[in-house]
Parts: sequence; structure tokens; C-alpha cells
Amino acid sequence: MNASIINVGNEVIEGDVLNTNAQYISKVLNEFGIKVKYQFACNDEVEDLVDVINFLKDKTDLIITTGGLGPTADDLTKETVVEAFGLTLEKNDDILINIQNKFKKFNTQMTENNIKQAYSIKGARVLMNEAGTAPGYFVVDTTPMVLLLPGPPRELKPIVEKKVKKYLQEYFASEYHSQFIQIVGIGESSVETEIRSKIKSDHVYIGTYAAYGLVTIKLSSNGYRDELISCTEKIKKMFKGNIVSYEKKELSTLVVDEMIKRRITIATAESCTGGLLASTIVKESGVSKIYNGGVIAYSNQKKEELLYVASTTLERYGAVSEATAREMVEGLSKLFQTDLCISVTGIAGPNGGSEEKPVGLVYIGFKLHHSIEIHKKNFTGTRHEIQNKVVNYIFRELSRKILVDK
Amino acid sequence: MNASIINVGNEVIEGDVLNTNAQYISKVLNEFGIKVKYQFACNDEVEDLVDVINFLKDKTDLIITTGGLGPTADDLTKETVVEAFGLTLEKNDDILINIQNKFKKFNTQMTENNIKQAYSIKGARVLMNEAGTAPGYFVVDTTPMVLLLPGPPRELKPIVEKKVKKYLQEYFASEYHSQFIQIVGIGESSVETEIRSKIKSDHVYIGTYAAYGLVTIKLSSNGYRDELISCTEKIKKMFKGNIVSYEKKELSTLVVDEMIKRRITIATAESCTGGLLASTIVKESGVSKIYNGGVIAYSNQKKEELLYVASTTLERYGAVSEATAREMVEGLSKLFQTDLCISVTGIAGPNGGSEEKPVGLVYIGFKLHHSIEIHKKNFTGTRHEIQNKVVNYIFRELSRKILVDK
Repeated sequence: MNASIINVGNEVIEGDVLNTNAQYISKVLNEFGIKVKYQFACNDEVEDLVDVINFLKDKTDLIITTGGLGPTADDLTKETVVEAFGLTLEKNDDILINIQNKFKKFNTQMTENNIKQAYSIKGARVLMNEAGTAPGYFVVDTTPMVLLLPGPPRELKPIVEKKVKKYLQEYFASEYHSQFIQIVGIGESSVETEIRSKIKSDHVYIGTYAAYGLVTIKLSSNGYRDELISCTEKIKKMFKGNIVSYEKKELSTLVVDEMIKRRITIATAESCTGGLLASTIVKESGVSKIYNGGVIAYSNQKKEELLYVASTTLERYGAVSEATAREMVEGLSKLFQTDLCISVTGIAGPNGGSEEKPVGLVYIGFKLHHSIEIHKKNFTGTRHEIQNKVVNYIFRELSRKILVDK
Repeated sequence: MNASIINVGNEVIEGDVLNTNAQYISKVLNEFGIKVKYQFACNDEVEDLVDVINFLKDKTDLIITTGGLGPTADDLTKETVVEAFGLTLEKNDDILINIQNKFKKFNTQMTENNIKQAYSIKGARVLMNEAGTAPGYFVVDTTPMVLLLPGPPRELKPIVEKKVKKYLQEYFASEYHSQFIQIVGIGESSVETEIRSKIKSDHVYIGTYAAYGLVTIKLSSNGYRDELISCTEKIKKMFKGNIVSYEKKELSTLVVDEMIKRRITIATAESCTGGLLASTIVKESGVSKIYNGGVIAYSNQKKEELLYVASTTLERYGAVSEATAREMVEGLSKLFQTDLCISVTGIAGPNGGSEEKPVGLVYIGFKLHHSIEIHKKNFTGTRHEIQNKVVNYIFRELSRKILVDK
């Protein structure tokens, strides 16, 4: 049992938007044990889409298309699928009424080109679209079956959650099992070598990948649940002491969750990351137990007023300096009195750098109880990349302090 | 002239990571006027990759693969390409030395499986990898040509920036032109209808897409520069007064850039979005001219201490209330004295909701000079989605206040 996804539209293929639909749908298919064979993206030229459909006909059990169901002239997915599988279109009054109601509700004029959305595929299940005008379709009497979904994620997701999942259960539920294991403190290559040398299984797939000092191992199997459990147990023994999770999580989530569990309170004082560290912390639910807040002190004036950094320090050493990072984290600690305080001051660029203090120079202050450390780092990349690297670095350091010694 | 991209690896196809490589490479190809015909993702099974390569052989001029060049047993892209095009592998001492140096530098043990990375494709240009051990390859004497790149973005990007771009220029530079036009205040469907009814061109492609109240029009043409300019001029006239940009930008970028231009100073006070609004503002370079900082007041205590919200207000109306949002924005204004102050207080969930105040209820305070507005909104979705929707809503509102009347 496998499925392939085709994302139609120039926005994805030309790199103007990130293809989040492919990831989201793949995750949902995984939940139901449906292996994804291919993800495709192509532009909205009929010929290219026909070629892909023909390529897939004998290779996959389900084709899922996203995009190209809208009212504009280049929205041709429905018409192309109908053509490729010898189906027919018919006017559907329910859809037309739904579209007319949407326009009434938003008090806008329905244009002539919206009417083509009211033609449905004969014999297909119509998946009404609550958030937009183009419905989805599930065609079950073709080989492979075809599921057509609208492109905008805010329209696609409710249809998948409320309707598609039921159909997947009904038509394709199977015996797929998977298990994640996450490890810190060992390199990907060593993890891989260790596993390959000690575990042999024909029925359990074991993959590893690494990001920001976190190695994620995924075991999966179609049908062989006991063998998967046995492999999992072996890996557990191998990396005992370095395992931080049995679910796939971000490093920031692991760190924040552990802090919530251990009630380690935290406060943040940010300059060049301007709230990015704080917003990463508050992504996690339940964080209010340990996070009271923070300060974004972007200007020197606010570093003095809000964090009690001495004006002489700023004059003598500058805002991007070990001394300022230290006074920021001390001031923050006075203000918030949390177990852990973190300060960040640096030059995210692209302007503001000098030979002595280049773009990417960042000082990060950690105050855990009474011990203060100031880390000086030089990051590279665009402004946004540098900001992200700072936050990733902080969570990697915190994982050493909080996760590994737990 | 067109190219197709194949992303190899279980991480993408199973939805564990987002396929950012495909977007990045598509953008680069676009810069050089190379049309992307297909993006593929497949798992690292040799057979599936061979099928895709064979599908593409007569359809594309350049195949670009990412991933599957690593040291592990499931990294088989190089071997598969060699097989599919009848090429051969040869041991390459330069690569081996580079790998050995990497291991020395990071002070880790080189494992046996790393040696397979030292076999290069005979006749191909080797693209040394500064950030990792697996080099890329550019094979020019096959039809189509093949470019093999490593999967991790931090390895792939430097190779593309420093080496691949030169080759693209050399082999494929052409006459591609494109132009973006961005519009606020008119719906996508109306924009589309207006354009289709007034502009006919066989050589200029015009696509539209919309997100968060911003409609982006992209005109592109291969070779017909004058016709593209003429179409652009017509669209400029059609939507005069609603055009906000001639580059593709995010709404937040447009708003912040306009504020920088007009020196509208801003401060932020966030509760449930915990710094996400601030971090979106400081994504933009040059923002220090208008952004001094902000406060993240996650707990009630900090709302009182940092923003002067009255404890009686918090007791009587609660932290998530019009009154609290109002006092937060007033307190913020006292603290920062900026032209624009924004406060956010709400329930991001998944816990903390009640019948009276459900998850997704958010109050947003805007204080522009002396005028205060409090917006009450109900957002839906996961915690992270709600946080993002709040920030998107704020920029949409600001675009009305700041961009349209400019």
C-alpha cells in the first residue's frame, strides 16, 4: 500500500513558496501506515501533469494532488485528472450554492471564473471546503484511486482532518508501526555504525538523521511489530544514558519540556535576536509554569533602563561585548529572579559590523543559579540565519546542561 | 532550457523534515532563467530513483539530486546515477584527504563507511564540501547533465553559492526575465479577472497568488523582455494606489520597511505570542532606527511590574480581556514613548481555555499616537498556528493603517 503526492502550481516549482503541503500530507499518510512512494511538484501545464499521472499509474495505489482547483485560468488539475482517467464533469448545484454563500458571507462579488469550480467529478465523493470555494474530490473507482485537494494549506488542512482521514482509515488502514529514538552526545556516523554492526533485520527499516547535535533514529516496519520492538530494545541498551526521547521532537522542545518537568524557571533578555529565543520557548504548551517573561532591549537606552546595564560599560566596551552580556544577564536575574537567565547581544547584520566586531559576533550569557558563563561566538549567514543559529546554539548548550546529565 | 530536482531520502518523503532544498534550488535556478520542470522526492530505494531518472531522461536538460551522498548504507544516489548513465567510480585521494582532515579537525573517529565517500564519478567535476565530508558532482557529458549535491542544507548551500552558480552561468545562462507586483486591498479573484480581461500575451506568463491579504503577481518571459515591460506597465496602471511592492516580499517586511522609511517608532508588549511579534519585526535589517525593544509579560505579575497593569484590572477582568490589553498598551506607551505601541494578550492553548474564554481568544491593542484600538479576535488551530495567526493579523491590520493610505 503506497501513495504519491503531486503538488501543482507555479508557486512551489518556482521556489516562491515552501511546499508544506507535501510534508503535512506525508505525515498524515504515515499515521495510517501508508508509505509515500513519491512526492512531485510540477507547474500547472496540463502536459507535465499528464506525464506524471501516467508515470504513476502502475506504481502507486493512491495519487493525491494538491492545488490547481481554484477559479483562475491556470487551475486545471481537475480537468486534467478527468481527462487522464476518462472521467466526466457534471454541474453540481450544492457546490454552486456553497460558493455563492461564501461570496455573500465575505460580501464580495462572485466573478464568472468561479463558476468552473461548481463542476464536480461524476461518481467522486465531494469534499466540501469550509475555508474556501474549491471542494476536494476522492475518486475511488480508478486505479490508482485519486484524491484531489485544494492548494492553500488553510483550506487543505480542515478537509484532510475532517474528511480525508476517515477515508484513509476506511480504505487503507494497515499494520504499519514506527518508533523514534533521539540521542544527544554521539555523532550520527557513530550511531549508524554501531547499529549496523549489531542489528540485522529484514523487516525493520532503521534510518538515522542529525540536526543541531540531536540524532534521530527511526525504526519502522510493515506488519512485523514484535521484530520492531526487539530492535528498539537493542538500540535502547546500546545508547543508554544518551537517549533523550522516544518521540520525534525538536531539541528546543526537549529542553523546555525537561525544564517544565524539573521546574527550572527561566527569563530572557534579547538584543539581536529580538524575541526569537523567547518565542521559541513559548511554542511549548505548559511553559507558563517556568517562563514569566523577558525583555527585548534592542537599543542601548533600553539596556540601561530595563536591565540596569551601566552606561560606562556600554561606552567603554560597547553593546556587543562580554561585559554587556554579563550585566544584561545580571540585570535580568535581579528583575526576574529565575533559576536560569539568558542574555543575548550581538550583530545580526547585514549592517553594523566592523573589523573588530564583525557581523555574526554574538555574546551569550547564561546564569544558572549563581554561576555565570559568557560565550563568545561568531556565526555566519544572513541576518535571519544568524538569529536562528544563535537560538539553536543556546538550545544545544542547554541540552548539555539540562538533558545529558539528567 | 529546464531542470528537474530529485530530493532523495526518507526524511523528506516521510514528512519528518520540510523540503527546503527544493525551494532554495528552484530559486537559484530561476535567477539564471532555468525553468524548473519537476521537483521530486523519493525514498532511498535504488529502484524508485532509477524509475525517476528514466522518466526524466527525455524531458529535462539538467537533473539535480540532493541527498544520499553520505556514508550510511542507505546513501546510494551516487551509485544509482553511475548505474543509470553507464558511468564509473574511481578512488579519489583528494577527497579522502579532505574527509580525513574533517575528522581530525572535529577530533572524531573516521569510521569504515566514510571511505565510500572517497569514490568519485569518473569524468565529473568534483564540488568539494567545506561543511561536510560528502562532495558534490557535476556530470556534463551525459544527457541530461546531472548535478549531485549533499542533502543537509548547511552543506548544500555553500556548494551552490560558491561553485554551482558559476557552472549554471557557464552552461545555462539565458534570456529569462521576471517581475513581481504586490497588491493589497483587492481580492485575488478580482485581480486575476481584471488582468485576464485586459492583457493578452503569448510570451509573458502571468501568475497570481494570495496570502494574508497580500496578492502577488508574477510576470515572467523567456526572451521577450519588451513585452514583459509592456504588460508590467499595464498592470501598474490597473492597480495604481494598491501596489505596495515591485519585489516579492512578505507583508511584515513591507510594513516594517515602510515604518523605517517614515520613521514610525514601535514597541511591543506580548503575552501569548511571547516574542513572536518582536522577532518578526527584527527580522528586517535597519529596524534599530524604529524599534527600541519590548516586553514579554507572560505572567500576571510581570504585566503589573513591567507594564503597570492594575492588579484590580487583572482580578476583575482577567489577563485575557479588553481592559488588560488596553492597560498593557498604555503601560508600554509610558515605558517606550513610541509612535506605535502594540499589546497582545490571549490564550494560545492547548490548555487554559474555558467556555467564556476559549483557546484562540486574543485581544490586541494598537496605540498609534494618541488613538487606541482594542481588537478582539478568535483564532483557531494549534498553539503554534494561533501564535502565528495573531502576528499575521497584526501585520494585515498595520498594512491597512500604514501601506494603503500612503
